[in-house]
Amino acid sequence: MEQTIINVKEKIRDVKDFPKQGIVFRDITTAIKDAETMKTIIDYLCEQFKDVKIDYIAGIESRGFIFGMPMAYKMNAGFVPVRKPKKLPAETYSQSYDLEYGTDTIEVHKDAFGEGDNVLIIDDLLATGGTAEAACKLVKKTGANLVGIGFLIELQDLNGRAKLEKETDNIVSMLKY
Amino acid sequence: MEQTIINVKEKIRDVKDFPKQGIVFRDITTAIKDAETMKTIIDYLCEQFKDVKIDYIAGIESRGFIFGMPMAYKMNAGFVPVRKPKKLPAETYSQSYDLEYGTDTIEVHKDAFGEGDNVLIIDDLLATGGTAEAACKLVKKTGANLVGIGFLIELQDLNGRAKLEKETDNIVSMLKY
Repeated sequence: MEQTIINVKEKIRDVKDFPKQGIVFRDITTAIKDAETMKTIIDYLCEQFKDVKIDYIAGIESRGFIFGMPMAYKMNAGFVPVRKPKKLPAETYSQSYDLEYGTDTIEVHKDAFGEGDNVLIIDDLLATGGTAEAACKLVKKTGANLVGIGFLIELQDLNGRAKLEKETDNIVSMLKY
Repeated sequence: MEQTIINVKEKIRDVKDFPKQGIVFRDITTAIKDAETMKTIIDYLCEQFKDVKIDYIAGIESRGFIFGMPMAYKMNAGFVPVRKPKKLPAETYSQSYDLEYGTDTIEVHKDAFGEGDNVLIIDDLLATGGTAEAACKLVKKTGANLVGIGFLIELQDLNGRAKLEKETDNIVSMLKY
């Protein structure tokens, strides 16, 4: 594993039993509060998509905003938030997805993208992939072109990648656990 | 009013009766989906604080993440999220504030800043100033030095600025309504 990855991984804090007993939470706040580490993360993720024309970055609420916005700034792309219900004020498309118990929903403005615009989705963490898969479907509902999806962290045991491979062949994660 | 401000203001969408009857919601999504306008906003806000040494930007959940992170990236500062309860995994300081009906609370990690670190708070909108005032108090609880607070939008009629003037003398907003 290259040194850059090791250095960033060392800045991720493991918090045991959060949000519930038995879970080890990968806390990104210790990485992004370090200016140099934060810059390394943003630059690394941008580098992975440098050969793709990107019109918009779609960030998934709310940690996807944290990584997606500086990437959009650096890549001269627009930024579009994918949000929980009732947060976006204009007309939206909705997409529901399954949770361990029940379902959840995310939304995007209907006029967020134009037909054929190239969109990259960004979130902090790939776990079971439910939210990310719903975000992929949302982007496609708008008529835009999904060019890839990027994460800071991938929890490989949960196999979210398999779910996303049906949506795009360009899946990137910086830190694998 | 300078042309830059006028151009950005034209990209803010007014949505009537959101989130409830009688409110005109200032929708920032139409501004940040335009790459050039988004860049103008970030560069303008950074420019206003260029004479201050900033160690950390504290962004208030969740639209403060949208503007705070690219500013931190550009200014070589760390980024610290100020979040709603139960979102931050490690030990936190909490601060409650009054809403129209009831109260709300925001939190920051206890180890987010060190004693005497220079912190700039960023959010999208200054309305009554309740959340922003609570964020100022939170930063001070950590022992850090609050050097200012910046917003994209200020709703002047609601007079949030008066509340914040007790916390800092460096209050910046780009668009005034």
